[in-house]
Amino acid sequence: MPKQSLQIIKIGGNIINDKETLSTFLSNFSGIKGLKILVHGGGKRATVMANDLGLQPKMIGGRRITDEANLEIVTMVYAGLLNKNITAQLQLNNCNAIGLSGTDANCILAHKRIIKDIDYGFAGDVDEVNSEVIKLFLENNMSPVFCAITHDKKGQLLNTNADTISSEIAKALSSDYEVELVYCFEKNGVLKDVNNDNSVIESINKVTYEDLKQKNIIAKGMLPKLKNCFEALDSGVKRVIIGNPEVISIRNQKYTTLSL
Amino acid sequence: MPKQSLQIIKIGGNIINDKETLSTFLSNFSGIKGLKILVHGGGKRATVMANDLGLQPKMIGGRRITDEANLEIVTMVYAGLLNKNITAQLQLNNCNAIGLSGTDANCILAHKRIIKDIDYGFAGDVDEVNSEVIKLFLENNMSPVFCAITHDKKGQLLNTNADTISSEIAKALSSDYEVELVYCFEKNGVLKDVNNDNSVIESINKVTYEDLKQKNIIAKGMLPKLKNCFEALDSGVKRVIIGNPEVISIRNQKYTTLSL
Repeated sequence: MPKQSLQIIKIGGNIINDKETLSTFLSNFSGIKGLKILVHGGGKRATVMANDLGLQPKMIGGRRITDEANLEIVTMVYAGLLNKNITAQLQLNNCNAIGLSGTDANCILAHKRIIKDIDYGFAGDVDEVNSEVIKLFLENNMSPVFCAITHDKKGQLLNTNADTISSEIAKALSSDYEVELVYCFEKNGVLKDVNNDNSVIESINKVTYEDLKQKNIIAKGMLPKLKNCFEALDSGVKRVIIGNPEVISIRNQKYTTLSL
Repeated sequence: MPKQSLQIIKIGGNIINDKETLSTFLSNFSGIKGLKILVHGGGKRATVMANDLGLQPKMIGGRRITDEANLEIVTMVYAGLLNKNITAQLQLNNCNAIGLSGTDANCILAHKRIIKDIDYGFAGDVDEVNSEVIKLFLENNMSPVFCAITHDKKGQLLNTNADTISSEIAKALSSDYEVELVYCFEKNGVLKDVNNDNSVIESINKVTYEDLKQKNIIAKGMLPKLKNCFEALDSGVKRVIIGNPEVISIRNQKYTTLSL
């Protein structure tokens, strides 16, 4: 019997922060016929909240350092404010969403990042995705909505990269489903020229990826994202797509497809 | 076949705010052998957060008025900070908790309270508990942990009284389970003399309740709580218990049992 299709879609801060963009996206997401999972970030809203509370979010090399106060903030903003408002909007659109963090039903187990050069604080690196319970939700007509909070099963919540969460869930579910992993962000795809949104590289495989890296066409921020993507493909994920939020409903515009 | 037992336990702000009390409580909760659901409030932590953000929580007659800014705060604090930390601590104790708000899997449907004398803002009155999905969680070895946020399925989150949520869940599940509803708070039970914690009234039924009301022994704050309790009993809940947090594990101290 062929495996059922499953779409795992990740959205970042730029989509979440714009009310209208988010609303359109969530309506399109609800329209997806098959099984689906949403993963959301929300770093920008957390930064605003930290500022409102008089805290400076600590960043090193563009990465957030999660001290105790900032962990409280991301837990509130990601798992509370954003996750529940997204879930409520999906429910409005008749999508039976269930908002989850990694600690809920022990969905995503992680460990506090080991200190090498930099102490990232309460940042989590994923150890295990509980695919059985996620399958249970999917098979009972629920669409899981994951925020980027995990736990270590020792009582500690951990701030975890949402791109990583998406690819780890995709990998864990790829033996049961034909998984398509979709990263939605503000650009139309991986661009040849970052200043030209029409310069989408429509398909990348492992060979052309090495070439693009060598030619410096794929830049800093995109490297960890693409590394995640190829790891997912190596682990059995069928297809990875990178594009703007519209890519989930209309596919006559340009976007990037990654394959092995 | 006799119905399976289910304990539904509600804890309020006084337990949540004390780290040690909460930790002991959660360890005891995890030790309960049968099916169990936890419902938590958290008003005090929300008040602290509102103050930190320079907002004055609006209260009329001891009840919170939930304007838009305060709805954001309770959503962050109840559904994010408290719900996820409680869930993580239960996971540490090998209790497979799943943190939920009413919007998740459409568990609890409510409507914005209709304005009579006072506009309570985004306060929710419960319309329906989705017992099927809660049963699914229970039957799959999960212990739901509900915060006091519901939704109206029109995209609106609503701040809802945690006592009411507990009794509504208890009522909805009483046809499938033999439900015991336990309210844990800072006192040992319903007291004859509020200043004497040893003056616990050990059992109250509908007849003695009317008598206690007439004699003014049951005071203001306790009235809506007991009204909820008797409504639950009228709807098939087996037993209602009011006591301190220890009542869930040891029952050799005094506590109040309500019956019809």
